[in-house]
Formats: sequence, structure tokens, C-alpha cells
Amino acid sequence: IIWGGGDRRIRRYAHADIAMVVLFGVFIRYNEESDAHWPEYKKKQNITSDAENDFYYRYPSFQDVHVMIFVGFGFLMTFLKRYSFGGVGFNFLIAAFGLQWALLMQGWFHSLDYNTGKIYIGIENLINADFCCAGCLIAYGALLGKVSPVQLLVVTLFGITLFAVEEYIILNLLHCRDAGGSMVIHAFGGYYGLAISWVLYRQNLNQSKHLQGSVYHSDVFAMIGTLFLWMFWPSFNSAIANHGDGQHRAAINTYVALASSVLTAVAVSSLSHRTGKLDMVHIQNATLAGGVAMGASAEFMITPYGALIVGFCCGIISTFGFVVVTPFLERKLKLQDTCGIHNLHAVPGMLGGFISAIVAAAATESVYSKEGLVSTLGLEGKFANRSPGTQGGYQAAGTCVAIAFGLVGGAIVGFILKIPIWGDPADDNCFDDEVYWEVREPFYH
Amino acid sequence: IIWGGGDRRIRRYAHADIAMVVLFGVFIRYNEESDAHWPEYKKKQNITSDAENDFYYRYPSFQDVHVMIFVGFGFLMTFLKRYSFGGVGFNFLIAAFGLQWALLMQGWFHSLDYNTGKIYIGIENLINADFCCAGCLIAYGALLGKVSPVQLLVVTLFGITLFAVEEYIILNLLHCRDAGGSMVIHAFGGYYGLAISWVLYRQNLNQSKHLQGSVYHSDVFAMIGTLFLWMFWPSFNSAIANHGDGQHRAAINTYVALASSVLTAVAVSSLSHRTGKLDMVHIQNATLAGGVAMGASAEFMITPYGALIVGFCCGIISTFGFVVVTPFLERKLKLQDTCGIHNLHAVPGMLGGFISAIVAAAATESVYSKEGLVSTLGLEGKFANRSPGTQGGYQAAGTCVAIAFGLVGGAIVGFILKIPIWGDPADDNCFDDEVYWEVREPFYH
Amino acid sequence: IIWGGGDRRIRRYAHADIAMVVLFGVFIRYNEESDAHWPEYKKKQNITSDAENDFYYRYPSFQDVHVMIFVGFGFLMTFLKRYSFGGVGFNFLIAAFGLQWALLMQGWFHSLDYNTGKIYIGIENLINADFCCAGCLIAYGALLGKVSPVQLLVVTLFGITLFAVEEYIILNLLHCRDAGGSMVIHAFGGYYGLAISWVLYRQNLNQSKHLQGSVYHSDVFAMIGTLFLWMFWPSFNSAIANHGDGQHRAAINTYVALASSVLTAVAVSSLSHRTGKLDMVHIQNATLAGGVAMGASAEFMITPYGALIVGFCCGIISTFGFVVVTPFLERKLKLQDTCGIHNLHAVPGMLGGFISAIVAAAATESVYSKEGLVSTLGLEGKFANRSPGTQGGYQAAGTCVAIAFGLVGGAIVGFILKIPIWGDPADDNCFDDEVYWEVREPFYH
Repeated sequence: IIWGGGDRRIRRYAHADIAMVVLFGVFIRYNEESDAHWPEYKKKQNITSDAENDFYYRYPSFQDVHVMIFVGFGFLMTFLKRYSFGGVGFNFLIAAFGLQWALLMQGWFHSLDYNTGKIYIGIENLINADFCCAGCLIAYGALLGKVSPVQLLVVTLFGITLFAVEEYIILNLLHCRDAGGSMVIHAFGGYYGLAISWVLYRQNLNQSKHLQGSVYHSDVFAMIGTLFLWMFWPSFNSAIANHGDGQHRAAINTYVALASSVLTAVAVSSLSHRTGKLDMVHIQNATLAGGVAMGASAEFMITPYGALIVGFCCGIISTFGFVVVTPFLERKLKLQDTCGIHNLHAVPGMLGGFISAIVAAAATESVYSKEGLVSTLGLEGKFANRSPGTQGGYQAAGTCVAIAFGLVGGAIVGFILKIPIWGDPADDNCFDDEVYWEVREPFYH
Repeated sequence: IIWGGGDRRIRRYAHADIAMVVLFGVFIRYNEESDAHWPEYKKKQNITSDAENDFYYRYPSFQDVHVMIFVGFGFLMTFLKRYSFGGVGFNFLIAAFGLQWALLMQGWFHSLDYNTGKIYIGIENLINADFCCAGCLIAYGALLGKVSPVQLLVVTLFGITLFAVEEYIILNLLHCRDAGGSMVIHAFGGYYGLAISWVLYRQNLNQSKHLQGSVYHSDVFAMIGTLFLWMFWPSFNSAIANHGDGQHRAAINTYVALASSVLTAVAVSSLSHRTGKLDMVHIQNATLAGGVAMGASAEFMITPYGALIVGFCCGIISTFGFVVVTPFLERKLKLQDTCGIHNLHAVPGMLGGFISAIVAAAATESVYSKEGLVSTLGLEGKFANRSPGTQGGYQAAGTCVAIAFGLVGGAIVGFILKIPIWGDPADDNCFDDEVYWEVREPFYH
Repeated sequence: IIWGGGDRRIRRYAHADIAMVVLFGVFIRYNEESDAHWPEYKKKQNITSDAENDFYYRYPSFQDVHVMIFVGFGFLMTFLKRYSFGGVGFNFLIAAFGLQWALLMQGWFHSLDYNTGKIYIGIENLINADFCCAGCLIAYGALLGKVSPVQLLVVTLFGITLFAVEEYIILNLLHCRDAGGSMVIHAFGGYYGLAISWVLYRQNLNQSKHLQGSVYHSDVFAMIGTLFLWMFWPSFNSAIANHGDGQHRAAINTYVALASSVLTAVAVSSLSHRTGKLDMVHIQNATLAGGVAMGASAEFMITPYGALIVGFCCGIISTFGFVVVTPFLERKLKLQDTCGIHNLHAVPGMLGGFISAIVAAAATESVYSKEGLVSTLGLEGKFANRSPGTQGGYQAAGTCVAIAFGLVGGAIVGFILKIPIWGDPADDNCFDDEVYWEVREPFYH
């Protein structure tokens, strides 16, 4: 039992929220679809039905994404025997903070009206804010159990900021397509978390070894997270895709890729065990790899069998990562990655980026139709002259930008977190809820 | 272990259901959108697309509300170490009964066709029936572990009836706006439960003290409830809002208010602890206060920063309530409130009502547009001459009506429940599933 | 503790997936609504809005069905004290495999274009693939804890195949209406699983008796499954119903029937106990019977009170089945049915089929309108001359076909599974996760 513990600096979350109130007051307004002027706007734009309000196209997907962020990521991180409160609770805390900051940061970069100086928000902004949080929650996966809630505030504050910048570079300047965020969310978030964790390496973490594992029911709780992530991933990848065939195709591709990942994750898990038993860690994580990798090409005409192949390969690679790469990284690279985000987010996200480069480069007018090619690859406006091949090159470049932002940004944030003012737990108190939570019932290990 | 226990009077739920069959047979029919005559109706009304069927506007929100009622409320009440079956099971039972009775009661008050004497139902009636149950489930929160399932039948029967009447007075006669039910659901339900619990005060409840708390995994189960309530609250507040901008804005406002509540609930929880630790009770409950308080003004142009302020304040007030007010009420007012509904529903609901009064009174045509003001504040038909200021006054009056109905109705129902014929558990058998459930594995406390 | 255990033949799931890649490559393509040619198609068909893409009509229901398959069925099967990994994990595995195979099998029978030899898929195919898996997962309920994952591969491979054939006969040749699959999913899946289980009877299963039961928290986990099934059943029964009133009415009917089942299941559970206590097994299962039975007539004008009566009766019958019939079947018929699918799926599914026969036969033009009768009963094309009475006869015949396919197919598959090459667990190792899973923490029973 931890005598003392706790950390009143958590009040800083309230301070951050006061800043939010001021910034929201200065900048954030409803957009034309969520403002009470909508009836007037409808008439002016000749819109005949309320069903054309973007709310109805995207709200069901938004709610699915919302579930992934809070229940999906949250419960996936309850697997530790004595850090379930911290897993689901701090996930809740940093996502709730992160989405406010993301509405502002993404607003400044994407939705700022230069005439009025205001950010006008609608349902798509909420989805993007949730996406933005996902990057930080992925990073939390590598740090789970080893950082304080105030450190997580710093991770999130910088993480959202970096996210908004890299997203602006990748989506606006390089004009990459990344509907499901393989690059901007998963590759960035994964390498961001890994870089932080690498800087924060703890030599004596084995003093908490007895808590770094699951018990029977904590593994079942984690399956709640896994399944909600898995089921709603088609919504994640289609939430901000183009109306009509774009959303439709993104959902189908992701559905198929995920199904395939399950089979290969299970097979490799069994093959890698001495007597063929399955490991819950692989089922909880590697089954999701296909969704991550499908993100950037979700809207593309990758064909259902193409999606199947992506899921097939990523299920294998991800499980292999858990079996071989994570222990190797810990031993050789001094990289402690609690949830194995290297295998679930960093690598499949990077692969997803490069896959999208190939698929974009291979796009032809006969497969997409003239209009379809323009809208799917976004070859409009000042990008109208870009060929599919060039677009493919930019997709690859965007992936590299995401990784670079993650690694460099993470290293810097890691060094900030090393300053001994953040109240992080001692090496022999890691993975233990009693440090930050009032736990009523003792735990005998 | 309880020898004996159990209560065959639970069969009365089946008796109640027989009455339902008869009453449904006499009164309930499909409305024009759910009847097979829809193709004819469509032609007659010049509706060109099935997408205009209200089903498609509201079904996704309905399903979210449905999840809040059954998983949200149900799992929120699993936190007790040995009353999880009763928490989620009786919640299931009374909601399933309540929604049938609500379809009838609300139908009589709101959807009765005086020519045919029939109630015509569609998706909006299902949402309203779920809302109506929410009032009773809130009340159950105060009574959790201390009443029998047959007493809950009485609580629900009268609760739904009172709800339908107060809702008719508030929404139809006073013509208040209350899309998310701050007044009609939360203030009413909260005070209804508190009044019942106050009448049923148990002097010797400390004989069950050893069961009135959580264990580690029961707290994790409760987080499932919390998160589904939290995530889907934007759907709750927007489910029956106006098509188009109304639903869109209600979702945005609620999303923002909830995010803010999380931060202040966490901060106050930590500040109120001797060494700064967090308390799961606060995270499970006070994080939701912003959603409750946002209910009545969800559709209004409260602005995103207005919503943020609402959430900010209610997170503080609610957590403060758990830390200070609930213990005070128990000691001084002899009021035992198992789940703390005073802090999560009664007070934030009341505040939400008064906030809506202020926001309505401040409404102007420049902010809402002419048409927007009429539709958002409902200043149509015989209420066309009402000014926003007057509407504000009525919003405040409506809040008082809801509280009065809750307190008076609850007191009466409380006295009915004191009649010793309902098989309530003894003082030393409270919070114990073994009284009403076959529990296969013994519990050593 | 199991020394050894595990089964590397699980790699066959990966082999199956390689076959899938090839078959998807040869056969599966996007349909006109998910293909990038959609903008062209829209123009050609004079479709004015993307909202007319079937994706927007069905995606919210699809996601609900998806949750039922993976979380609903999966968590319902976590109730055993030491087989929760296998319950939720193997459910995940066979559903992920099954949906790929179902896309192909159902595609060949329903969506094959004879000119191009391709299967064109959209959102409705995904829903149907999930439905198809449901049949196999129901069968898994009878076999839970007694078969190996490789045996489950065989059960699923044949189950999906049989499903596609019986579905083709029932829906296309006999032209039955079965929106929610009372016949094609529940009656078929139920009898399929029972027949397999009957062939695989284990004389010495009582050697695993100590593991064939629940603990407190495993029962709470199972309630997650129950509630998601219960809440989303209206989506299940309306997912592929006709646009407009069809989906609307199917949702209402199912909602009402399910509510009614809860009350009678609880009442009968209490009445059947010596001192009136409730049994979690009944709450977890029999409360769902109304949804199963409502499947085939969900779209029909059964009226809300008709739906209430269906739920009322099926709640009683199903609970009665758990109390009396399952023990009888085990003792007299040598039929071991772990989850009691006989009471939740087989019998209510069969009843649902016959109920739909009666309701269809009673259909009149005055109740449905001329156009409504044609679209609801599907009396179009070469079935235009069928009378409602005749349709009723075909509904009954379809039910019998489903049962026959289940019984005969299940018996054959059962005999295949008796060949001693599949690595099934020994009689004293049933219901034990340690046979196939790496379980880190020992279990003291």
C-alpha cells in the first residue's frame, strides 16, 4: 500500500479549462449548419431537405468514433491487474481535455475565417477533435502506468499541437489523402509515444514487475475495448470520407481488412507459442492492425481482395511484433512500451501510409471514372494537374513527415517530462493505481 | 448467506404486463410513418424520399438513448461490491416495464387522436418512453440496495404517471423548451427519488455498512455505465430536438459541456482529498453533470463557450456535492442517497432549468434570425406573441413545477411504500444480492 | 492446471484466409453504390442526393448488428467462471472467419451477376454476412467449452454453407418474408447446434462439473452481452427491412416485444424458484426471446399489442424451457446444451416462423393498403398472384425447411467432428480456458 501518494497538481486540468473558456469565447462559433440561421441558409443555398445537413451524414459515425476513443482506447488499457482505474480514468481525462484543445488548434489551422477571425464548428470538427485525441491516447499506451496525470497533461498539450501542425502540412500543403489517419493519427501517435517512452527509460522498472501483467478478469475488461475498437473501425475510417460512395467504400474496405487480421493474428499467436496456446495480448491488439493500415487508403478503389491482403499481412506483422520486436526493443534499445503501440499503431500506420502511396499511384480513370478520380484523390483546385503517380509520391512523403514529427516531437516532450517537477511515480510504484487513486480494498499480490 | 429470501410477488410484473396487452390493444396503433399506408401518405404529402421518414432523422439517436437507459444507468449502478445483479438487473426490469407504461401515459397526454381515441406511435414516442423511464431510474439511484423489486414496480408505476402529468404541464401548458429534460427528467427524477428515500429513512442502515462500498472490479464495471452515459449524452439532448440545426447544435453544446465537466470534476476530486488522490465515485458521476445541466438549453444559441462554462461550473458543484453535501444530508436531514443523485441529477437538473431561463430571456432575432427564433423557442401558434423574456420566465416556472412534482409525488409514494406489505429487505440485508438473487458462489466479507 | 494443451492447428484459420484472398480476387467487387463510379451512376439514375445511397439508410443498423454479433454474442458467452476467454475470443474468431465466407456464399446465391461472374457488394451484403455468422454463433452456444477452435472452423465452414443454401430456398424459391431471421437464422442455427451437440454427447462431462457454472463477476460480464443484444435487436430485425415504414415498423414491433419478454421472464424465473429468487441465467437469456420470435413478422402489421403478446408468451416459454426442458433434454435425450440455445433460439425461432405464417395469412388490403400489401409481403414479380393466405402457407413451409436443414446438417457435421483428428478437449478439461489459452494467473477451484 502506498502511504501518501496522490497529486494535487491535477487541479491544473481546471486551470487549463479556464484558458479554454477564454479561448472558446474569443474564437469558437457555430457554423452555418449548426447555427439557428440554418433555415435562412437553406433557402439561400436552395437546399430542400434537412436531411442534407451534414449532421445526418456524419453523426452516426461520429458516435462510433466517440465510443472508440473513450470505451475502445479506455478499456483496452484496463488489462493491467492493478492499473485499470488509471487506464480507463486517465484516458477519459486526457481525451476530455484533448478534444477541447483540438477544437481550437485544428480550428486555427483548418476552419479559421480570416475575415471574422472566428472558427466555425460543426459535426466534422467534433470528429476531427476526437481523431486528434486518438494520437495522444496512442502515445499514452506506451507510457501506461509510468507517468503522472500532470505529465499526461503535458503530453496531450504538446501532442495536440504537434498533431495540428503535421496534419496541416500533410493534408493541406502536401495534400495527402488520409481519411482514417494511418499517417496523421497512427504513425504520428505511435512514434510520438515511443520517442517519449525512450527518453523516459526506467532502468529499475523490474521493481514493479509483479504488477506488470493481467489477471483473468482484467483481460476480459480489455476485450471490451478491443471489440468496440474493432467493430467501429469502419466508422473511424469512413467518418470524414466523401459523402456517398466514399464513406460506403471506406466502411467496406475496413470491415474486410479487419476480419482478415483476426485470422492471421490468431494463427501467428498460436504458432509462436511452445505448445500452440493463444495469448490474450495478441488477440486484444494485433486483430486491429488491419484497421490501422487501411486508414489512408480506405476511400481508394483498393478492391475488397486488396483490403483482405492488407489485413492478412498486418495481422501477421503485428503479432510478430509482439512476440519478437517488443522484447527486442526493450532489451536492446531501452524502449519500454507498455501496450505495444509499436506493433499496433506505429508500424501498421507507417505501412498504411506507404500502401496508400502505391494504391494512389496505381489509380486510373477507367477504375475510378473521371469524376471519381478527381473526388477520391482530391485532384481539384490547385492540385488539378497532379497525376495519380505524383499523388502517390506525396502520400509516401506525408508518411515520412508524420513519423518525423512523432520522433522529434516526442523526444523533445520526453526531455521536458524528465524535469523532476511532475510527480511521476517511483520505479517500484509503477502500474499501481494506489498512487493516484483512493482504492478502498487492499490488493494482495 | 441469506436463508430464505426471494419474493414471489415479482410475478406482479407479469400481471402488469397483462394489463398492458389490453391497454395496448385498445389504444395503440402505428402512426402514418410506421404504418403500411406510408407509400400512400408519401404521395399525398408530396414527400419524394423515404429519407424524409422521421425514422432516419431520429433512429441513431434513439439507439444511443436506449444504450444510456439500459447499459448506462444499469452499469453505473453495478458499483456496489455485492449488489451488481440488483443494480443492472432491476434497472433492466423497471425500464422494460416503465417504457410500456410510458408509451400509454405519454400517448394519452401527447399523441391521443380525439376522433379515433387511438394513440399513434412512431420513433419519437419510443425516445420519449425511454426518457420517461430515465426519471424513474434516477429515483432508483437513491434507493439502490434498500428496496424490493415490488416496491420498484410501485415507484415506476407512479413515477411514470407523475412524469406524464408534469411533462404535460411544463411542455404543453407552460410551453417550456426542454429538449434534453433538465427539468422534466433530471430535476423531477432527482427530487422524486430523494423524497422517497427521505420517507424511507433507515435508522439502522449501518448494519449493512460492510456491503455499502465497491471492490476494484465493481468500480471498473461502473465505468462502463459512466462512459456510455457520457459519450451518448449529446444524442440524449439532441434526440427530439428540431430537425437540422436544432439537433446539430444540441449535440455540439452537450459535447463541449461534458468535456469541461470532466476536467473540473477531476480537479475538485483531487483537491478534496487529503493527499490529492482521485475518488472513483466522483469520476463515475460528477463528470456527467454538464450533460444534465445542458439539457434544457441544448437547442439554444448558448454558444460553445457558454456550454463550456456550464460544464465547468457543474463539474465543480457536483463533485462538491459528493464531498460535502451528501454526507451532510445523511447526517442532518436523515436522507440516504445511495448513488448521490442529489449531486448528479437533482441539483444540475435544477440549475439547467434556470440556465435555460436566462438563455431564453437573452435570445434576440439578430442571433437566432427571425425564423430561427420562432422555431428554437417554439414561439408559434398560440404562443406567437410571447417575447423571449416571457419565455425565460416560463422556463423558470417550469423548473419549479418539476421540483414540486418530484418532492410532493415522492413523499406520497414514500408513504405508500412504508406500508409493510412490500417485502423490503431488513436493515442488515441491504445492498446484498443474495436476498433476491440465486447467487452460486459465496461471498466472504 | 493443464500441462501442454494448446493446438497449433489453429494456423488453419490463416490457410482459410489465403483461400479467401484468392476467392475474393476472383469474385468480389464493389457495387454501384460503393464504387467510385457512383457520381456517374447518380446522374444516370437521376438521383439528386447522396442521402439516397443505401449506406445512409442502413449503416446505423449495420453497426448495431455488428455490435450484437461481436459484443452481444461474445459477452453472453463469458458467463462461465473459467471460459470467458474462449467465450468471447472464439466467438470473435469464428465470426471474423464466417463473415468472409458468408460474403462469398451469399454472394454466389444472391448477388452474382451472371454476365460478369462477379459478386457486387454494398452495405446490405455486410449486414447479411453478419446475419449469416449469427447462425453459427448460436450453434457455438450449445457447444461452448466442449470443442476445439479447429472444430469450430468446421462448424462455421459448413454452417455458413448450409445457411446460404437454406436461405436461398426459403427467401428466393419459397419467397418467404423473414426480415429478422426467425427461421433462417434462429431456428436453423438453434437446431444446427443442437444436432451437433447431440452427436457429440459426452458421457463423462460431469468430470468438468466444477467449471460448468458462473462466478459473480462472470455473470456481470454476461449481462453486457445480454443488454447489447436486447437493446440493438430492433436494429437487427429492421436492418434489411424495406426503406421507410418497413424499417420503422420493424423497430417498433421488436422494441415492444422485447420489453414484454423481460417482465414474463422475470416473473417465471421467480415463480420457478423454491423461495422466489431470480436466476441470472434466465435474465441473461429468456429476456431476449421476444426479439427472436418477432423476427419473421417484424415488418408485418402485427400491431403493437400483437407484438406485446408475442413477447409475453415467448418470455414464459423460454424461461420454462430453461427450468424444465433443458434438464429433461440432458437426462433423457442425451443432449448437452451449454447456453440453452434450445430455449432462446430454436423454439422461439420456430414459433416466430409460425407466427409469421398466421400474420401473413391474415393480411388484408384495408390494413396494409394496396401498395403496402404488395411491398410488405413481397407479392411482386412472379409472386404477384399469391394471396396472403398462400403466403402464410409458404411462411410455415419455410420454417420447416429451416429446421430440417438445421437437424440434418447438424447431424452430418456432428459425425464429421467425431473423427478423432480435431484435438477436442478431454472430458475433464471442458469449460477450461487453460487448454487453449495462456492464462497467467492460476485458478483455485
